[in-house]
Formats: sequence, structure tokens, C-alpha cells
Amino acid sequence: MKYSPLVSQLIKALTCLPGVGNKSAQRMAFHLLERNREGALDLSRALHDAMEHVRHCERCRNFTESTLCEICIDPKRSQSGLLCIVESPQDVVAVEQTAEYRGSYFVLMGRLSPLDGIGPADIGLDKLSGILEEEDIQEVILATNFTIEGEATAHYITDMCRSKGIVTSRLAQGVPIGGELEHVDGTTLGRALASRSQI
Amino acid sequence: MKYSPLVSQLIKALTCLPGVGNKSAQRMAFHLLERNREGALDLSRALHDAMEHVRHCERCRNFTESTLCEICIDPKRSQSGLLCIVESPQDVVAVEQTAEYRGSYFVLMGRLSPLDGIGPADIGLDKLSGILEEEDIQEVILATNFTIEGEATAHYITDMCRSKGIVTSRLAQGVPIGGELEHVDGTTLGRALASRSQI
Repeated sequence: MKYSPLVSQLIKALTCLPGVGNKSAQRMAFHLLERNREGALDLSRALHDAMEHVRHCERCRNFTESTLCEICIDPKRSQSGLLCIVESPQDVVAVEQTAEYRGSYFVLMGRLSPLDGIGPADIGLDKLSGILEEEDIQEVILATNFTIEGEATAHYITDMCRSKGIVTSRLAQGVPIGGELEHVDGTTLGRALASRSQI
Repeated sequence: MKYSPLVSQLIKALTCLPGVGNKSAQRMAFHLLERNREGALDLSRALHDAMEHVRHCERCRNFTESTLCEICIDPKRSQSGLLCIVESPQDVVAVEQTAEYRGSYFVLMGRLSPLDGIGPADIGLDKLSGILEEEDIQEVILATNFTIEGEATAHYITDMCRSKGIVTSRLAQGVPIGGELEHVDGTTLGRALASRSQI
């Protein structure tokens, strides 16, 4: 005997969530059935609405339910001449929260990863190339992650921009604010030393 | 700037799942939007169907979409005279998987926990009392967890059965199969010694 058909179906469907295996899915299903049916119905509607209506912004590839996202539609930002390239929509929010940047974005929705079969077309570099040619971009700020794949992606895009004569920059690397030297790894500390600034 | 309205709504709705906070919900939402829209739509439908149609079996309180669950509807099992009392639907499946038990169940959907305000009525003991009076039950097997609350619940039900003159039993405690004495905790080993059986 297993669970009743609808319960089994719900448990199986919940495993489509990343990091949710069969045991967690059971726990979630019973929690919702027993304690939060209203929340589960809200989730059902939210999933349906988002999957049906959310698409990619036609300029920056971020998620939006309109043709252009909130940032790209703002002429002050899209005509600032600054383009910040990030890997994910979460990174856009992270940069926005600094309130230090007033330009526009391009969201790769991934990173170059030849081993996983993710090439330039998969992260929209053909579209980026079009933007660099058509728009008046003065500086491209590379804000991909400082992982091996993020760095490789940044290098690839730098080459692309250089061939079009556009200035590129990369986020600074160094000791984080509030960081204690003793707990910072050697590579970061070495980089911070090499990029030291006069005071 | 935050995410677009439908994306924000999806992230918020996902936090209704147990163990899912804001960061995990973001990761889930972007994973579904980017990589598994079909799975997300299936999940939406499964949630809706389960929440609308799944209810409690009128006899044993387990989840089912019918009036009586698969086990209670089987006369061989409901007339076996054996009633196994468990805390959750997962426990029914665990006992079923042993293939050692052919009686029926009563699912408490919780355990007595006065500190959390969970009393006898919340775990359906009034309904259990009705079953014990109306049906021909020869033995009640207490298969609640061996936690403090599970034990307290078992004691409470034992008293209830005793007042009606029904035999009750509890799952045996001891060293698990494949267990090494050196790694078994003292209380369990003490209980195994006290309940030793002649060979």
C-alpha cells in the first residue's frame, strides 16, 4: 500500500523543486494537507500565473511579465551608457541594493561552462553583441561571480568588448568590509596586496 | 527594485513550504522559471487537486480522496479485530512495508503535546473511543513514536483501552537488526536486557 493517488501525485510533483527528495516531499505534502491548505492553494495559483506569464525581458533577459523589464523601460538607466553584466536575476537585486549603480543590466542566466555544454549562445552573448553594436555603451562592468566559470565568462566577454572598442571593468577584489585578515584566505589577501591603493 | 510582481508573488508563496525560507524560495522560483516550467505547472495542478479533494478517512483519519481509505474499505482488515495506532500517514506506510500486519489503523495525525495546546480531541481520541465501543476490537497495538510525547500518548490511550477492557500492546524495544552493541545507547541496551527473551 502506498498513499492515495492524489497524495502520491502531489509528493511526486513536489520533487521537481531543487533540493527536495522523496522524504522532504512527503513532509511538505503532509504539512500542507494538515496545516496549510490555504497557503498551498495560493502556491498553486502563484506557480500557474508565473509559469504562464513570466518571460525574459527582450533587452536584458531578466525575468519580467512585460516585454521590457522595469529597469530597461527607464530611459535614464538604459541611456546611461553603463551596462552591468551579471549571471542571475538575484545578482541584479544584489547590485541594486547597493544603490551605487544607476545603469542598466544584462543577465546571462548562467555562465559559460563547456563541460555542461553551456556555450556563448546559451547565455545570450549573441544578443549582448547586438546591444553593444546598436546602443551607445561607454563601459561594460563585469559582475559575474569570482568562480572559475564566472572568471572565464568575464574573460570571454572582455575579448568581445575589446574587439568592439568598448571599455570593460571588473568588480574589485579584496578583503571584505568587517573582514579579519587572519580569516581571509591567502589568494584573496594576495590579490588585496597586489591591488593596494594609496591613502 | 525587487523582482517583478508575479516573481515576487511566487517567491512569497513558496515560503509556505516547511523548511523553505526566502533564499531557498528564490532559488526554487528561478530554477522552475528557467529550467522546469512543465514540472512547475504539474506541481500547480497537483497542489490544487490534492487540496480540493483529499480529506480524512471517516474511520481511521488517514488522508484519502474517498469517504473511507483503501485499508478501511477492506472488510478482511477492518474486521480483523486488530487496530494499530500510529501518529502519521508515513507511519502507516512504514508498518505496511513490513508486510507483518494485516489489521486496520487509526492515524492520530499528531501526538498529545499539552505545551503546544494539542489535547486528546485534536488527535481524534473521541473518534477512537467511538471505534473501540462500536467495533469488535480484540487488541490495540500502540505504534506511536518512542519519543517523550509519543510515549505519553501511548500511555493515555492505554488507560482509555483499559477502562473499556481491551488488550493493548506496544512495539518491542531493543537493539536494531544489524546494530552493534558498542554503538547502541545505554537506555536502549538497558531496555533490551530487561526485555531479553529465552532462546
